[in-house]
Amino acid sequence: MQNYFMYEALMEAKKALELDEVPVGAVIVKEREIIARAHNLRETLNDPTAHAEILAIKKASEVLNSWRLSGCEMYVTLEPCPMCAGAITASRIKRIHIGTFDPTLGACGSVIDIVQNPYLNTMTDVNWIYSEECSDLLKDFFKKKRKTR
Amino acid sequence: MQNYFMYEALMEAKKALELDEVPVGAVIVKEREIIARAHNLRETLNDPTAHAEILAIKKASEVLNSWRLSGCEMYVTLEPCPMCAGAITASRIKRIHIGTFDPTLGACGSVIDIVQNPYLNTMTDVNWIYSEECSDLLKDFFKKKRKTR
Repeated sequence: MQNYFMYEALMEAKKALELDEVPVGAVIVKEREIIARAHNLRETLNDPTAHAEILAIKKASEVLNSWRLSGCEMYVTLEPCPMCAGAITASRIKRIHIGTFDPTLGACGSVIDIVQNPYLNTMTDVNWIYSEECSDLLKDFFKKKRKTR
Repeated sequence: MQNYFMYEALMEAKKALELDEVPVGAVIVKEREIIARAHNLRETLNDPTAHAEILAIKKASEVLNSWRLSGCEMYVTLEPCPMCAGAITASRIKRIHIGTFDPTLGACGSVIDIVQNPYLNTMTDVNWIYSEECSDLLKDFFKKKRKTR
């Protein structure tokens, strides 16, 4: 993994994997420093909103003592779902870097587009990284899940 | 207000107003009983995810000890934004009752549709209540805000 911040997001995703959670991780960066990191904890916390992105946004807001994360960038291993894409625009994050696309629920262009939607007047830059490590982690997880069913 | 549950959501919205928050309230109902209630606390908590719907969903998940809110219905005074509409579908809430539409950010049909989107394979029933009390509360709030600027 060449991108340091995406590598850190991937390390978060691996923490989710250890908990048998869908392995997704995110970090939020401001001025080249990580100010928040989180991984998916939906099953562990029994909370449908406990996706990596939402948890990272909440932590970053705490750190900055503001709900406006202007000037921040998010690195996330999987394309955000509608809830998370909506939270990203609501928090004013300026750019997201995405490790792999989600053909089922992706809300940054794959299925619908919430982050660059002229009707919603939301403009978050999107940088696709297309990391095999991010996508393989998810593929392996779902392959094992299907086998154990 | 004829609808008892929407009246309760409106009472939540009024709590937000008292805190100078955008006045939006929500309740979640299961088997004709309110299991969670919440109001917008974005400014108070400095948290961009602290919309009424998200807070209500988190509470209901706690009450039911499950992230799946199957069989639950939400009453919300304003049409959910993309983040909240995404959270509603992610939580498997079966029906939402909406007090008034949001022409700027509404994600249940007004601007985009996340809750009944065939591409996303999400099907949450929507019942529009069109309450003047819900819309007047918001209009008055923004009118005063513009005056004090």
